[in-house]
Amino acid sequence: MASKKSVSDAVIKRLPRYFRYLSDLLEFGINRISSMELSKRMGITASQIRQDLNCFGGFGQQGYGYNVESLFREISTILGLDNKYQTVIIGAGHMGQALANYSNFEKRGYSLAGIFDNSPDVIGMKINGVTVADIETLEAFVKTHKVDIAMICVPYGHTRSVAEKAARCGIKGLWNFSPMDLKLNYDVIIENVHLSDSLMVLGYKLNEHISGNLPGNRQ
Amino acid sequence: MASKKSVSDAVIKRLPRYFRYLSDLLEFGINRISSMELSKRMGITASQIRQDLNCFGGFGQQGYGYNVESLFREISTILGLDNKYQTVIIGAGHMGQALANYSNFEKRGYSLAGIFDNSPDVIGMKINGVTVADIETLEAFVKTHKVDIAMICVPYGHTRSVAEKAARCGIKGLWNFSPMDLKLNYDVIIENVHLSDSLMVLGYKLNEHISGNLPGNRQ
Repeated sequence: MASKKSVSDAVIKRLPRYFRYLSDLLEFGINRISSMELSKRMGITASQIRQDLNCFGGFGQQGYGYNVESLFREISTILGLDNKYQTVIIGAGHMGQALANYSNFEKRGYSLAGIFDNSPDVIGMKINGVTVADIETLEAFVKTHKVDIAMICVPYGHTRSVAEKAARCGIKGLWNFSPMDLKLNYDVIIENVHLSDSLMVLGYKLNEHISGNLPGNRQ
Repeated sequence: MASKKSVSDAVIKRLPRYFRYLSDLLEFGINRISSMELSKRMGITASQIRQDLNCFGGFGQQGYGYNVESLFREISTILGLDNKYQTVIIGAGHMGQALANYSNFEKRGYSLAGIFDNSPDVIGMKINGVTVADIETLEAFVKTHKVDIAMICVPYGHTRSVAEKAARCGIKGLWNFSPMDLKLNYDVIIENVHLSDSLMVLGYKLNEHISGNLPGNRQ
C-alpha cells in the first residue's frame, strides 16, 4: 500500500468519476471495455486513464481492455465504499436540509446519524426522519455514537468555531460548505465544497463559448 | 486571445481559487506577494502558480512577485466577473432553495431572475423575494428576460428533459446538480456539480488518514 502515498489529488478526484461511469456500464450490461472506449465516454485521454489506474497497480490487460466488474469492484474498494460511514449535519438551514434529503449518500454507504443546530426555530424539527438536536449536545452524541464525518452547513462566520467544535469532539472528517478553504489546528481531514467556484467556471466557459473559443458539451 | 483556447480545464478550475485567495489578501491589506508565499498559502507549488498564470500572459515580475490588486483585477476579468449574469433555478426543492438563498452568487455578479417548478405545492411560493413560477412559463419568461444560466435542481429522472427544455428556450449555461455527467445535443455549456464525488473523496482521504498514509489539513 506504500505506493498509494504518492497518489496525487487530481487522480483521487477522478476516482469517483471512474466509479460512476463503471457503475453505468455495469447497469447497461457492458462487461469489457477498452481504455480507448472508456476514454471516449469519459472525455479523458486513454493514456490518462492508464496512468491513473496504474497508480493503484493497473487493472487492464493488453489487447483485452478492462473487465468492468472487477475494475468497478477495485475502485469501490480503493474509495472505501465497502466501509460504512456515520455522518452528522451541522446547520439545519436550506443546505443542511438539502444534504439530509440527498438519497445518493446513503446508497454510497454514508448514513445520516444526526442533525445539529443552535437555533430554537429548527431544534426539534424532523428532517428525513432525523430530529434536529441542539448543537450543545454534539459532544455527548459523539461519545455514544460513532461519527466519522460532520457536514458543515452553517453561515460563513460560524464555520471555523463549529468545525473546531466537531474536531474537538473527535470527528475526523469535515465536509465544509462555507466558501473558505478551511484549515484547523486539529488532525482532521477537510474537504471544502466551493459552489461559487463551480459557478465561476461555468461563467468563464460561457464567455469563451459566446466568443467562439469553446464548443458546447455535446453528446 | 487565441492563447486562451489552449487553457486546460485544470487551470480554469484553479482560477476561482486564485480569485478567493487574492481577495482575502486584499482584505488584509497585502498588496505584494511572492509566488513562493502565495504557494505556501494556497498549497500549490510556486512553479504551478507561475505556469498557471503564464497561460494568461503571466503577471509576475522577477524579484518583485505579484502585485495583488492588479493580479486580482486581471483574474476577475478573465473569469468574467465584470459581467452580470442572469440566472434561473429550475426545481424549488431543498437544493433549489439553498441556491436561491446563497448570497455569495449575487456578490459575484450572478443575479437570480426566476425560479421554476412543476409542482402546485411550491408554485407561487416566495423564496428570497422571488416567486416560484410554473415551469410551463419558462419559455415565455426567457423571451422577455435575459437568462444566461439555468441551475438545474430537479430529481435525477427529470434532469435530462428539464435541461433540454432550458436549452431549447435558448439558455446557454446549465449548472447541473443531478449526479450525472449531463451532455445534450444542444450547443450549450454544462457544468456538473457532483456532491457525492466530493464526499467519496473525503471518505477516501479519511481512510488514508486513519491508516497513517495522509496527514490532516492543518493550518
